[in-house]
Amino acid sequence: MTPFKLTEELVAEIKLLIYNQEDVQLEGLLNEVHYADVAEIINELAAEEATYLIKLLDSDKTSDVLTEVDDDLREAILGNLSSKEIAEELEELDTDDAVDIIAELSEERQQEVISNIEDEEHKEEIKELLKYAEDTAGGLMAKELVKVYDTWTVAGCLRRIRGQAEEVTRVHSVYVVNKQDELVGRLSLKDLIVAKNEKKIADIYISNVDYVNVEDNVEDVAKVMSKYDLEAIPVVDNSKTLLGRITIDDIVDVLKEEADKDYQLAAGITQDVEADDSIIELTRARLPWLFLGLVGGVGAFLIMEGFQDTFNKYAVLFFFTPLIAAMAGNVGVQSSAIIVQGLANDDVKGSINRRLIKEMLLAALNGTILALFLFFFVWVTKGDVNTAFAISASLVVVIIVAGLIGTFVPLFLNKQGIDPAIATGPFITTSNDIFGILIYFWIAKMVLGI
Amino acid sequence: MTPFKLTEELVAEIKLLIYNQEDVQLEGLLNEVHYADVAEIINELAAEEATYLIKLLDSDKTSDVLTEVDDDLREAILGNLSSKEIAEELEELDTDDAVDIIAELSEERQQEVISNIEDEEHKEEIKELLKYAEDTAGGLMAKELVKVYDTWTVAGCLRRIRGQAEEVTRVHSVYVVNKQDELVGRLSLKDLIVAKNEKKIADIYISNVDYVNVEDNVEDVAKVMSKYDLEAIPVVDNSKTLLGRITIDDIVDVLKEEADKDYQLAAGITQDVEADDSIIELTRARLPWLFLGLVGGVGAFLIMEGFQDTFNKYAVLFFFTPLIAAMAGNVGVQSSAIIVQGLANDDVKGSINRRLIKEMLLAALNGTILALFLFFFVWVTKGDVNTAFAISASLVVVIIVAGLIGTFVPLFLNKQGIDPAIATGPFITTSNDIFGILIYFWIAKMVLGI
Repeated sequence: MTPFKLTEELVAEIKLLIYNQEDVQLEGLLNEVHYADVAEIINELAAEEATYLIKLLDSDKTSDVLTEVDDDLREAILGNLSSKEIAEELEELDTDDAVDIIAELSEERQQEVISNIEDEEHKEEIKELLKYAEDTAGGLMAKELVKVYDTWTVAGCLRRIRGQAEEVTRVHSVYVVNKQDELVGRLSLKDLIVAKNEKKIADIYISNVDYVNVEDNVEDVAKVMSKYDLEAIPVVDNSKTLLGRITIDDIVDVLKEEADKDYQLAAGITQDVEADDSIIELTRARLPWLFLGLVGGVGAFLIMEGFQDTFNKYAVLFFFTPLIAAMAGNVGVQSSAIIVQGLANDDVKGSINRRLIKEMLLAALNGTILALFLFFFVWVTKGDVNTAFAISASLVVVIIVAGLIGTFVPLFLNKQGIDPAIATGPFITTSNDIFGILIYFWIAKMVLGI
Repeated sequence: MTPFKLTEELVAEIKLLIYNQEDVQLEGLLNEVHYADVAEIINELAAEEATYLIKLLDSDKTSDVLTEVDDDLREAILGNLSSKEIAEELEELDTDDAVDIIAELSEERQQEVISNIEDEEHKEEIKELLKYAEDTAGGLMAKELVKVYDTWTVAGCLRRIRGQAEEVTRVHSVYVVNKQDELVGRLSLKDLIVAKNEKKIADIYISNVDYVNVEDNVEDVAKVMSKYDLEAIPVVDNSKTLLGRITIDDIVDVLKEEADKDYQLAAGITQDVEADDSIIELTRARLPWLFLGLVGGVGAFLIMEGFQDTFNKYAVLFFFTPLIAAMAGNVGVQSSAIIVQGLANDDVKGSINRRLIKEMLLAALNGTILALFLFFFVWVTKGDVNTAFAISASLVVVIIVAGLIGTFVPLFLNKQGIDPAIATGPFITTSNDIFGILIYFWIAKMVLGI
């Protein structure tokens, strides 16, 4: 397979074919292209053009394409399709993907679309899945799985699997249940193939099966699956009844979204936006944190104004405030990032106090090294050892306090059940700017004895 | 399965059992625990205690434990084991995991360990894999796979698979090769089970198979696998000979490492460190960026000193420099983060110019809104409309320039083949601090006509 490459020429050609309604050529061109690549092409089209293609191509391909296109475009396309047309796409999808799409529609539209789904079993399963919150195992799971009873034989099992497997795209594991439909174990297809035909499932299944509860949070599911290197995990309710299964590809998406979100929060972006979103969307995501920065800057202004009289002789002190603010911000971001990441990977252990002491030592070491450079710079350029000492001594204290705030805030937020990731970024930079400048002037005043 | 919970009591109990050499009890306690959980326990032990456990427990468990423990501890444990003992652990591992461990040893130690591996095939495969660079498909792949020839029948195939599958933990796909061992297609176990016994493989295999070249970069492999939702991908050489396969659990690790690295770079941490690393390691990772911040701060100082005479009347201008620097930094980080993420996800399309124009409009919009607030604040508190206008007009320009720098730098680095992730963080904050303050004073000087 030569890898697919999205080119401007290809997009232009497809736009032209759509414009001229050259259906046969479009089908010929796109039939052999993987749905993920068709989605990339469609992302470059206008909503009307995209809708044209979705209507033209077979549902077994376009349904998968719909799951992959950008959110905004999908919304526009779904708006252009009738409830019946949407229902036809959903028939082709696994229940988890179908629910992801239907969940984006209005309550009323959802009912219309569901009533147009012809396959009764599929319809009921989708209705069931819609009940679960999006960020729970139930919201992520699919109903498609291969289930066998512990009383069956291997031969009987293989026969039944041939039936069930037709509608399950990928068989990761065969789940073994008892008469009450309670999950009791699992089998791999490999185990089944290797086993003798007349064996009973009860004799060969592996009872040590990982599972998650339907109400578990998706991030916890992701942790379990990546920790135990699972490719699929069964989902059960409180009485251990087997309800569905989650596959690793969905978890890869969860992990990516989680990482993207943390990265954006650290950069001061509050909503999930992409480079290609509109200016209004990008402004909505960026302005709140900038406004926080503005308020912080005004705070710094007020502090400096308050110290104005004291320091009329020492204008030079004011020229170092950007340096102080920058160092406080940088140290705070560094220490909070390490804590946030440690919390996400579950490797922050031990007491908060021990961690604060460690950060204090670390900040004191970094701060002293940096302060030495600054001391000599100020001493040499200004020729005043007192000022040099005042500025560099404050820098050490500012760095220590910044490190402590950066360590404490995410740990505190985490204890309160708030996502600690919001602590890395403008929140910590802004508060550290203010504290840093305040501490800087206090210490300088003390050292200079004014 | 009740989820495993690491408690201090459990760790204390195990430490005591190790101290008293209560081997039977230790085995009883740990035999039923998943290797990933045993690794969590071991991470809490001293190197000598950890080595004791590794020697005590069965290799089929400890080998997997070794792949999961923290790097530093693994290094210490391997140092405590003889070459023969390490070789015994490696016998139990898939080739990809075995190579990951052996690659951490010195050249000389590697030879010793390899010569102690008894399984000749395993030994040769490990030697082959050691030749590939760690960040290539070859460095990630395992030799364990199920391979069938297109001339076989389904029945013959199932018979042979029973043999091959014993040594392959998880069978994702059956790879179909021709007489020259060239990859020609794939089959799922499901396809085999569903097919009639007397069919020829040549008649039922799927020829549309994704694959990667052994020299492809792991990040590209991760992109292909997550884009096409693949759970395993075959690896071939330039003549399409099947060499190995990469599974999704390895890709999950690559994606996590990549995300962690980008997050740390954005926070100004240059090396891969964890919250529990030593103070020296953490300092080495953090000090360089802080030093950059210090240099930036000194730059800001020099600029402000240069404008000192001009602004003797306008001390208030100096009090807003932290605000200006913070806004320049925040805007720069926001715009670079969006570009860095867009580049990572391959959704930054179109020309650089178009993107810069968009960022300029966005920054102008954000800047104007923020400047309006600042204008009224300064006007009301200082009662001087000229100063208020000078400061807020500069803010708009500063924000626009900061946004342009934040957009341009990662795009430029990416074009030069440098990881754009280094652009989000101290690098952009520091340069934006300096440019921001410089522009601020220029514009203010112009507006105030001094």
